Amino acid sequence: MKVLVVNGPNLQKLGSREPEIYGAFTLSDIEQRLSLIARENNITIDFFQSDSEGEIVSRIGKDDFDYLIINPAAYTHTSVAIRDSIAAARTKAIEVHISNVYAREDFRKKSLTAPVCVGQIAGFGILSYVLALEYIIKNEDR
Amino acid sequence: MKVLVVNGPNLQKLGSREPEIYGAFTLSDIEQRLSLIARENNITIDFFQSDSEGEIVSRIGKDDFDYLIINPAAYTHTSVAIRDSIAAARTKAIEVHISNVYAREDFRKKSLTAPVCVGQIAGFGILSYVLALEYIIKNEDR
Amino acid sequence: MKVLVVNGPNLQKLGSREPEIYGAFTLSDIEQRLSLIARENNITIDFFQSDSEGEIVSRIGKDDFDYLIINPAAYTHTSVAIRDSIAAARTKAIEVHISNVYAREDFRKKSLTAPVCVGQIAGFGILSYVLALEYIIKNEDR
Amino acid sequence: MKVLVVNGPNLQKLGSREPEIYGAFTLSDIEQRLSLIARENNITIDFFQSDSEGEIVSRIGKDDFDYLIINPAAYTHTSVAIRDSIAAARTKAIEVHISNVYAREDFRKKSLTAPVCVGQIAGFGILSYVLALEYIIKNEDR
Amino acid sequence: MKVLVVNGPNLQKLGSREPEIYGAFTLSDIEQRLSLIARENNITIDFFQSDSEGEIVSRIGKDDFDYLIINPAAYTHTSVAIRDSIAAARTKAIEVHISNVYAREDFRKKSLTAPVCVGQIAGFGILSYVLALEYIIKNEDR
Amino acid sequence: MKVLVVNGPNLQKLGSREPEIYGAFTLSDIEQRLSLIARENNITIDFFQSDSEGEIVSRIGKDDFDYLIINPAAYTHTSVAIRDSIAAARTKAIEVHISNVYAREDFRKKSLTAPVCVGQIAGFGILSYVLALEYIIKNEDR
Amino acid sequence: MKVLVVNGPNLQKLGSREPEIYGAFTLSDIEQRLSLIARENNITIDFFQSDSEGEIVSRIGKDDFDYLIINPAAYTHTSVAIRDSIAAARTKAIEVHISNVYAREDFRKKSLTAPVCVGQIAGFGILSYVLALEYIIKNEDR
Amino acid sequence: MKVLVVNGPNLQKLGSREPEIYGAFTLSDIEQRLSLIARENNITIDFFQSDSEGEIVSRIGKDDFDYLIINPAAYTHTSVAIRDSIAAARTKAIEVHISNVYAREDFRKKSLTAPVCVGQIAGFGILSYVLALEYIIKNEDR
Amino acid sequence: MKVLVVNGPNLQKLGSREPEIYGAFTLSDIEQRLSLIARENNITIDFFQSDSEGEIVSRIGKDDFDYLIINPAAYTHTSVAIRDSIAAARTKAIEVHISNVYAREDFRKKSLTAPVCVGQIAGFGILSYVLALEYIIKNEDR
Amino acid sequence: MKVLVVNGPNLQKLGSREPEIYGAFTLSDIEQRLSLIARENNITIDFFQSDSEGEIVSRIGKDDFDYLIINPAAYTHTSVAIRDSIAAARTKAIEVHISNVYAREDFRKKSLTAPVCVGQIAGFGILSYVLALEYIIKNEDR
Amino acid sequence: MKVLVVNGPNLQKLGSREPEIYGAFTLSDIEQRLSLIARENNITIDFFQSDSEGEIVSRIGKDDFDYLIINPAAYTHTSVAIRDSIAAARTKAIEVHISNVYAREDFRKKSLTAPVCVGQIAGFGILSYVLALEYIIKNEDR
Amino acid sequence: MKVLVVNGPNLQKLGSREPEIYGAFTLSDIEQRLSLIARENNITIDFFQSDSEGEIVSRIGKDDFDYLIINPAAYTHTSVAIRDSIAAARTKAIEVHISNVYAREDFRKKSLTAPVCVGQIAGFGILSYVLALEYIIKNEDR
Repeated sequence: MKVLVVNGPNLQKLGSREPEIYGAFTLSDIEQRLSLIARENNITIDFFQSDSEGEIVSRIGKDDFDYLIINPAAYTHTSVAIRDSIAAARTKAIEVHISNVYAREDFRKKSLTAPVCVGQIAGFGILSYVLALEYIIKNEDR
Repeated sequence: MKVLVVNGPNLQKLGSREPEIYGAFTLSDIEQRLSLIARENNITIDFFQSDSEGEIVSRIGKDDFDYLIINPAAYTHTSVAIRDSIAAARTKAIEVHISNVYAREDFRKKSLTAPVCVGQIAGFGILSYVLALEYIIKNEDR
Repeated sequence: MKVLVVNGPNLQKLGSREPEIYGAFTLSDIEQRLSLIARENNITIDFFQSDSEGEIVSRIGKDDFDYLIINPAAYTHTSVAIRDSIAAARTKAIEVHISNVYAREDFRKKSLTAPVCVGQIAGFGILSYVLALEYIIKNEDR
Repeated sequence: MKVLVVNGPNLQKLGSREPEIYGAFTLSDIEQRLSLIARENNITIDFFQSDSEGEIVSRIGKDDFDYLIINPAAYTHTSVAIRDSIAAARTKAIEVHISNVYAREDFRKKSLTAPVCVGQIAGFGILSYVLALEYIIKNEDR
Repeated sequence: MKVLVVNGPNLQKLGSREPEIYGAFTLSDIEQRLSLIARENNITIDFFQSDSEGEIVSRIGKDDFDYLIINPAAYTHTSVAIRDSIAAARTKAIEVHISNVYAREDFRKKSLTAPVCVGQIAGFGILSYVLALEYIIKNEDR
Repeated sequence: MKVLVVNGPNLQKLGSREPEIYGAFTLSDIEQRLSLIARENNITIDFFQSDSEGEIVSRIGKDDFDYLIINPAAYTHTSVAIRDSIAAARTKAIEVHISNVYAREDFRKKSLTAPVCVGQIAGFGILSYVLALEYIIKNEDR
Repeated sequence: MKVLVVNGPNLQKLGSREPEIYGAFTLSDIEQRLSLIARENNITIDFFQSDSEGEIVSRIGKDDFDYLIINPAAYTHTSVAIRDSIAAARTKAIEVHISNVYAREDFRKKSLTAPVCVGQIAGFGILSYVLALEYIIKNEDR
Repeated sequence: MKVLVVNGPNLQKLGSREPEIYGAFTLSDIEQRLSLIARENNITIDFFQSDSEGEIVSRIGKDDFDYLIINPAAYTHTSVAIRDSIAAARTKAIEVHISNVYAREDFRKKSLTAPVCVGQIAGFGILSYVLALEYIIKNEDR
Repeated sequence: MKVLVVNGPNLQKLGSREPEIYGAFTLSDIEQRLSLIARENNITIDFFQSDSEGEIVSRIGKDDFDYLIINPAAYTHTSVAIRDSIAAARTKAIEVHISNVYAREDFRKKSLTAPVCVGQIAGFGILSYVLALEYIIKNEDR
Repeated sequence: MKVLVVNGPNLQKLGSREPEIYGAFTLSDIEQRLSLIARENNITIDFFQSDSEGEIVSRIGKDDFDYLIINPAAYTHTSVAIRDSIAAARTKAIEVHISNVYAREDFRKKSLTAPVCVGQIAGFGILSYVLALEYIIKNEDR
Repeated sequence: MKVLVVNGPNLQKLGSREPEIYGAFTLSDIEQRLSLIARENNITIDFFQSDSEGEIVSRIGKDDFDYLIINPAAYTHTSVAIRDSIAAARTKAIEVHISNVYAREDFRKKSLTAPVCVGQIAGFGILSYVLALEYIIKNEDR
Repeated sequence: MKVLVVNGPNLQKLGSREPEIYGAFTLSDIEQRLSLIARENNITIDFFQSDSEGEIVSRIGKDDFDYLIINPAAYTHTSVAIRDSIAAARTKAIEVHISNVYAREDFRKKSLTAPVCVGQIAGFGILSYVLALEYIIKNEDR
């Protein structure tokens, strides 16, 4: 089983970026933690980060994975293109957010991508990603 | 550590209620699965289901737990009272939904309770509850 | 055949409550008139009035009737919970209103419950209930 | 006593028009069923169907009836002119709809005509008309 | 010089129609009063009343007049077609209303036709028409 | 009979102010033309121009006139205070506008003052004022 | 004279609940202060607190008081049912709020209940209640 | 194969009507050009123009054609009745517009009829009609 | 201690102004009643009434008082300037209204000034002012 | 004459992407069909597909073509940048859509790019492109 | 060359007014700094501050300057009258704001005056004024 | 001190792009003028232009500058990603626009980026950039 983890714009700056909102961990911390869990569960895991909406669309367009964990970051609220790419891929996608987007600016409460995902996990910091991977493992286990 | 799991209106009908949306499992299935995990992790877990907004407010008002897992169901979209009760309790609350509320009617996309929770997990069926409990375990573990 | 008649908040005050809007008849008048018609048509009829959204949800949740005649009163405009309970019961529901809700305040023009009912009868005073029962009789007769 | 039954645009196509929404009965079926009931109750009943907003306004403008049963169809949602004609006629009008307009597109939830009618009956197929006539008979009977 | 006076739906009922809003004068009273003034000023005046949006469009489409006095009545608020017909005629049009539309329901505050007219006169009863004709006389006089 | 003519902000600049919208006539031209008509009809006419919302409110508050002709200019769209002063004066007020406010920016289509006036005359240049005075003369004549 | 004081959801938690917003006094403090004033003025005063919308509706429905002081708390913004119960009781009601609801979230600025009350007192902590009782005393005194 | 071409209100005035928006060609030019193409492709083509919403509904209601090319003109933005007639006819309809409705007033950007058509062609002058007919020919050819 | 009482536009007309809404008392009645209470409590009280937004801003800008009782009247709903002047003065302000603004036109439900005041008292006629002064006395007494 | 055909995000996946909406043909099929027509008409045709908003802007920015056929796909609804690039190029642009965007989600009904194009062709599958090219040929032919 | 600097309501309180938003400098500081620059550049500079919308309109109405630097303060968001006065003056106006109005309350994001100015400079404290004057100098220099 | 100047989409086309809106100067003209000023003030200045939202995010993400002058062009109105990148960089940013965005289409009045900048300078052509740099110099000078 292959899982793709996509991180959207500005997430390469985790750790230094507004830590009171996004926490002190880095993108590398996320990747290491997920890799460890993946290895223990015989899952192939791939990581992709891009600031570009188009590159994210293209990456998802390859459709070479069984599950998608995606934190579209700012594009959550503005990108019909990524929404369409997830719908086109027809794979199981899980939307994750580090911060609780519902406790912030109004425009962050609208998700264009969530309706085409299986579900959404928001607000748990690095654990949002971990829980998404746990879901995949438990779901496959059924 | 004590966890309270609150289920809102109509959730006692899980299993027979619109199974194409809510799945075939029952409220009892949820409680058994969570109890098992709780026991393994030395967590005291309590369950409360009510169709009444006021009873849910009163139950949360007791403030006798460390974490709250809450599926406010229909009240997610209409209850300022439950929102206020969560804010008043000042405990860590996790909002869960069985279905992907973002893929349904527009009025289900607004959550009055999410802004006062730590975060939200939506769309994973029975696993939404399981992941919420996993979050608590992992969060305590830090 | 069993019919359940549910009356929402403040309807126990019919007769004294704003009679220029709701008329001079009482809740008991409604029940007697419907009982008479039911008896003549071999219909078992049950009545339930509550000011509580949760109790109405719970009563509908018993699902022990073939048809539901419901006047959700104020909850028509605010209750997703009752809407969900009607959808969960999967029985034929008829929404009734004593007054013409379309000729009053704007917020009374929105019905959260009507979309999950067979239809709506509004504005005919006590006859709104009578017509709903007539519908059931005629519909069964087909 | 004289009753006028007005049917708006596209209703002459009942039977062949989207039968999954409007049913398999024809406009003629409606007229025959209502005529039968009218005859039994000594009511003179007239029928008028037009696709034209202006013709409906003109017909109502004759004001030669005691009650009006009107299915404005599409004009329900767009016609201030028909609304004004009903208000100008100052007769008791009952708005009927074959389908449950509240379970369809959003624009069908707004009725410009209902506020100037006695009430509205929607969602009961051919029985919506029958119930409207029953109302008139019962109301006269008081 | 030729003036066309167009009256929209329900205006043939003036006198009997909601006199507390529209006054006790009839359409014939308006026509007689305007004819008198026209005659005194060597103006050819034509009257046209229709309940039909399409007939009004067609009449304006003849473009055989120098000035248009139009009371579009209900169509003021809903008719893009009449708006387009006035714009297409490229003649000087004056919109008149008997009642003060700004003191009534919200939907009467929007005029689709006023933007393509020279101006609007509203609220002066039969005098709204008289003032419109006075404008034409005075304007020509310049 | 006494008539007060109130002109709002920027109207003292008529003649030089955006003449393609407001025409080439001056405030003095308006006053002379109205004075002439008033004299011929034995009407006492007073003129008041102010750029200040408060001064207009105070002037109307004197309530020493039988009719009010008011061009509130920019305050038409923003002033609840002037609206309230007209309602408090309980005299017959006529709102006038030089330009066709309905053919300009959207915010000019809303009038806060029109609902408390007898009516509105808009778009006829200097003649808007003349017609308002004609209305008063004809109305008194009835 | 009899006064009923109704407190809505979460108000039993005053003192511990978000004291930076609601202050450090308890519900009991309010009741003692009001009782003292009532006794001095020969007023019978009753207290009722409930987290349940339906119970509040039922309590008001008893209509056994001359004045109602009500802090509907969260239900201020969501409850048509309580609004209707106040309107049905036809007694003089005073709406009170401890915090200044106008300085908080947008959804707290809308009151469904205020339009059917005599007036509203908001933002004065425990004194909001005291002032409401002062109003009753002074009003009776007139 | 039979094609019906319906033209809505004011389109009989093409050529003289606002030529800077609608061009210098006439309705007759459109009909001649389409007739020529139809003849070359063995298509029976019928033309219908009306200023009346109701007549257009009635014409479409005959359902005696295989394809419908319709320029609803002003009714595009206001007519639920024509929308319903197209849906009722269950034939393939193509909506055309002479001007680019998206580059004009906001209210012209909403089409009530487009959702029940196969598609829409807008902005190409007389060629909008020609392209619609080309579509029919090519589509049949598949 | 010094209290400033500011009354906004049209309030000098109390007594004659729409008495069914504002009551029969005059501005002088208010001032006398408040002066009496102030004298008994050793409070220096100043009164200021103006129809002008700017004069009210300037008066508040003097900042020579400890408490401000303000009835901004019409400016409540439109004046950012007065809002800013209250915020700039950083004194304790109490907003009062004679009528229940929540039971009137929609635009009166929005207060621009309330968010920068301690609280609001609305609907109690002359007693709204008295209660505001009572608040100041009791608050100082704490 | 040179024509540029731009295809936006996810269109390289045509054939496999939601074929019930977008059909079974591929991007290559489109290009071959257009190339054939272009060759027969002595038109140089270029194709460009990108998932990236910025790359599309840059490509259009080269301005090295006489006509632009563009299917902006998801960017239709979100991209001011592409709109600006089309306006900056000042060439004749035709917007095309494979599916009938008016029969889908609400957010697909808004086009940011259509107002700066000559026109729009939507809903005809591969033929939308073909018709756009036919327009260019016929337009040049005039 | 003559420059007029207009400062709106509450700006005479700079220095003491909410210094965390508006800084510690005074209106006099602004005037001194601008006077110095003006003198060095042979510019006649005039200052005008008023809390009154009407006085600002009247001052601008004098039209005795070549450039206008205006900080309309609160009136930015509410005054059509000042907007109209700037448009009437037909001089080059520059709108300035001390604070970044886009980072504050939503109602401060709308400027009624900016559309009739050359441009806007916001957020730079006292330097907003200085930059506006620099613009004038550099613009004249071209 | 290091300043980064970022120019968004379509700005490489300055000079040829809609010169009546954007002027006749080129991007190179801007860079030369700013370089000259920078050199005179010992400022290191870097220029970056991209049509790609993602590339702009990545460039800002390098965080290797003390001040950012950014003209996000079309992305001003649509990009949460660039907003987040500016907030993440925690440097002083100045938003500039060549044209007066407030005098153009409505969608250009909303800036997603301005709230996270120090301020905004709009409408002064090439001088918008020059003033931004002047601000930096003067601000450093304090």
